[in-house]
Amino acid sequence: MDLNADLGEGFGVWKLGDDEALLDLVTSANVACGFHGGDPSIMRAVCAAAADRGVAIGAQVGYRDLAGFGRRRIEYRRAELRDEIIYQVAALDGFARVAGDRVRYVKPHGALYNTAAVDEVQAGAVVDAITDYDAGLPVLCQPGSVLARLAADAGLRVVGEGFADRAYLPDGRLVPRTDPDAVIHNSAAVADRVVRMAVEHTVVAADGTVVPCPVESICLHGDTAGAVDLARRVRASLLDANQTLASFA
Amino acid sequence: MDLNADLGEGFGVWKLGDDEALLDLVTSANVACGFHGGDPSIMRAVCAAAADRGVAIGAQVGYRDLAGFGRRRIEYRRAELRDEIIYQVAALDGFARVAGDRVRYVKPHGALYNTAAVDEVQAGAVVDAITDYDAGLPVLCQPGSVLARLAADAGLRVVGEGFADRAYLPDGRLVPRTDPDAVIHNSAAVADRVVRMAVEHTVVAADGTVVPCPVESICLHGDTAGAVDLARRVRASLLDANQTLASFA
Amino acid sequence: MDLNADLGEGFGVWKLGDDEALLDLVTSANVACGFHGGDPSIMRAVCAAAADRGVAIGAQVGYRDLAGFGRRRIEYRRAELRDEIIYQVAALDGFARVAGDRVRYVKPHGALYNTAAVDEVQAGAVVDAITDYDAGLPVLCQPGSVLARLAADAGLRVVGEGFADRAYLPDGRLVPRTDPDAVIHNSAAVADRVVRMAVEHTVVAADGTVVPCPVESICLHGDTAGAVDLARRVRASLLDANQTLASFA
Amino acid sequence: MDLNADLGEGFGVWKLGDDEALLDLVTSANVACGFHGGDPSIMRAVCAAAADRGVAIGAQVGYRDLAGFGRRRIEYRRAELRDEIIYQVAALDGFARVAGDRVRYVKPHGALYNTAAVDEVQAGAVVDAITDYDAGLPVLCQPGSVLARLAADAGLRVVGEGFADRAYLPDGRLVPRTDPDAVIHNSAAVADRVVRMAVEHTVVAADGTVVPCPVESICLHGDTAGAVDLARRVRASLLDANQTLASFA
Repeated sequence: MDLNADLGEGFGVWKLGDDEALLDLVTSANVACGFHGGDPSIMRAVCAAAADRGVAIGAQVGYRDLAGFGRRRIEYRRAELRDEIIYQVAALDGFARVAGDRVRYVKPHGALYNTAAVDEVQAGAVVDAITDYDAGLPVLCQPGSVLARLAADAGLRVVGEGFADRAYLPDGRLVPRTDPDAVIHNSAAVADRVVRMAVEHTVVAADGTVVPCPVESICLHGDTAGAVDLARRVRASLLDANQTLASFA
Repeated sequence: MDLNADLGEGFGVWKLGDDEALLDLVTSANVACGFHGGDPSIMRAVCAAAADRGVAIGAQVGYRDLAGFGRRRIEYRRAELRDEIIYQVAALDGFARVAGDRVRYVKPHGALYNTAAVDEVQAGAVVDAITDYDAGLPVLCQPGSVLARLAADAGLRVVGEGFADRAYLPDGRLVPRTDPDAVIHNSAAVADRVVRMAVEHTVVAADGTVVPCPVESICLHGDTAGAVDLARRVRASLLDANQTLASFA
Repeated sequence: MDLNADLGEGFGVWKLGDDEALLDLVTSANVACGFHGGDPSIMRAVCAAAADRGVAIGAQVGYRDLAGFGRRRIEYRRAELRDEIIYQVAALDGFARVAGDRVRYVKPHGALYNTAAVDEVQAGAVVDAITDYDAGLPVLCQPGSVLARLAADAGLRVVGEGFADRAYLPDGRLVPRTDPDAVIHNSAAVADRVVRMAVEHTVVAADGTVVPCPVESICLHGDTAGAVDLARRVRASLLDANQTLASFA
Repeated sequence: MDLNADLGEGFGVWKLGDDEALLDLVTSANVACGFHGGDPSIMRAVCAAAADRGVAIGAQVGYRDLAGFGRRRIEYRRAELRDEIIYQVAALDGFARVAGDRVRYVKPHGALYNTAAVDEVQAGAVVDAITDYDAGLPVLCQPGSVLARLAADAGLRVVGEGFADRAYLPDGRLVPRTDPDAVIHNSAAVADRVVRMAVEHTVVAADGTVVPCPVESICLHGDTAGAVDLARRVRASLLDANQTLASFA
């Protein structure tokens, strides 16, 4: 099983999350590429630190929207979004190379993640960008999403991820954030769910249904209170369950 | 002899210069990388058009300053500027790869060009960036500049360029732009000077002195009135003088 | 009748449209405020030139999206968009004051215009911004739009505008841009339609229906080929029809 | 005596400093205007909170440089910088008006502060901006600086500020940040120095010289560790010394 988290999401003087602590816990680092967060010096530092620890470097690509941190949906033409994604992946790849490594996968961020899960234009743009830049790069996304389908259709490797602290619907989608029960705050429950995802490839939905959850990676949140402690607990629980932690890439 | 010009300097809805016409005349394209001008879709289009024509793709790196078009000097720490340059070169390299090509050289833009010509911190940042990203990339700059010296010291290939329409001082530097005689507007005179640079490797300074001008490339301006006509005339004069036009890269 | 056009839409080194020529023809200037286009020095210059000619200064507010020129729909929370609009109106008002004048009205730009015409959240944000900043400012928008309705409900003055060169549907909305017949290119036809709007307050829809068109202003496009000539012709036709040209503000 | 601090310096999702705590301690709030930090919703919130507490709202104007937080010197033409400053002051004034108040003074930020202290072009731009926008606005700056001189020459009100935790040279300038003794970390010493500035209008320079320090305001840093505690201590010491704390504006 792989553990991924968003890293390098500061900008200039502004910090976000505890990159150093999380890099000791995850096996894959979704590194922001400067469009929704991250800047060149942060990208370089995170790539170097990830490469040092053998953590896989992924391009966390987002909208060109620093002010909204990539969380506001933007309507793009497919080619325009494709090119913005190539730009970001290539820029990060530069710092990965400087660190003696390469970008190993691509994961959309924020509103692009959510939109590409349901929208053919934006999912198609992500697929086009990876196909153009390096068709060998896996895309990390939600199983069953439009992006997962289009990427598979295009011959890309699709890596499904599960969310450690999010409640699921019986159809395998997430309970929307607007629902008060969308996030699971009990860390023991979170750890148990992650172990179930890893061992049985299932998750218990909000209504008690046991739902298939075919994931190769678990997404940990990096910027919430207690994020590092939760990541540590999830990691320990997986190791206790005799799971091997390693990047999918 | 090589002919270079700045290309891809529009942004979004805004255009600048006539990229298509110039691409038929130059042998090296200094492509803006999105910090002072240029955007991902423009970069992709210019890289594709350059690759189609066999024009060498160069990274025209600049300050993070769209509002000032990279023409306002900014004081950077050396590492910070180095990382911004790596980011730009790598991003452009992505589009060059998509076009089946690679970035072939690096040229600083605007105030970075002028500053790196005299300032060790900024020249050093350019050298560090190239050394880190790909030490095989030549740097295109002014002969005798601090950048030329530091790049040579670091073992980089230095390609000197001459300015087709700029007046020179007896010491080989340019007459400052603030001087009314800084720019030569007579296109016949410009063409003659370029041929002299190519054939005799000299230039006649403003005071009549014949000055050594050891250049492998001629810089044509892309965004001035009559730029395309002037480029055409310079090109024709060089061919008339039996010069071979080819990129240095 | 009022004639309005978008002005001051360059940015830094980049130009767009012929501001000087249009300022001699319109009675209201929709001045870009720096978020989708425009920069402080352009805003100052356009305000000064408008004030000199007695042209009313309007705040053309848009999304924070220079790269997309405010033409890509962005999903905002209502309060966030409201505050971005206040920021823009107030900044422009500063330059209007420097020119001895004031901002006289507000008009949304691009995707914000289109979205606020149909979406309560974004229309509401425009209304909130005007109400907060200066409830005496009229909003210039399309008759029958959600924005027109919410603005009227909030007690704001609503000024309806007609589009000189756009085809209309029988229900009074515009033929979508995706339709090949969306734009009317024949300048005589454009001038006739404008006169009809001014004199009879109607427009002939694409299917021949005569549709009410209760407008106090005509929108001229500033950045298309032939924009200035078309504006001149429309202006002349209105004067020939004994219409008085004056700002609504 | 007045106490001022920089506030509202977050951007989007990123936070900086503890605005709420400092607003209970200062009498003047230097509010970032969106160019080096701050965004419209932050500006609105800080203006509202300041107005509620009777804290004077000042425009903390900076370079257009989010990535560098306005701390990198940028060379501007005077008119261009003037217009960027007007834009910022006017935008903030919009939110001050929404809060039922007005911008009460202007203070340059970061590299603009330092540059305007020694450079006639940039000091002149600040003076021009205030003169154009509202010549009644005081400028908050260092006594003896070029900005103080040019502002006084232009008839503006100049308010001198002292730095609570910075060491001084015998000529009244600050010990440069590059000096290890530039910042005074002992909070008791800081409080004593502030009281001396308030009561005796002097400061003890690094070499022991007693130097005149004609200040009407004390600058507290908002974004350093222990900033709030230090502000609280300085405030208490001034009150203990029977000083009245009130904005100069």
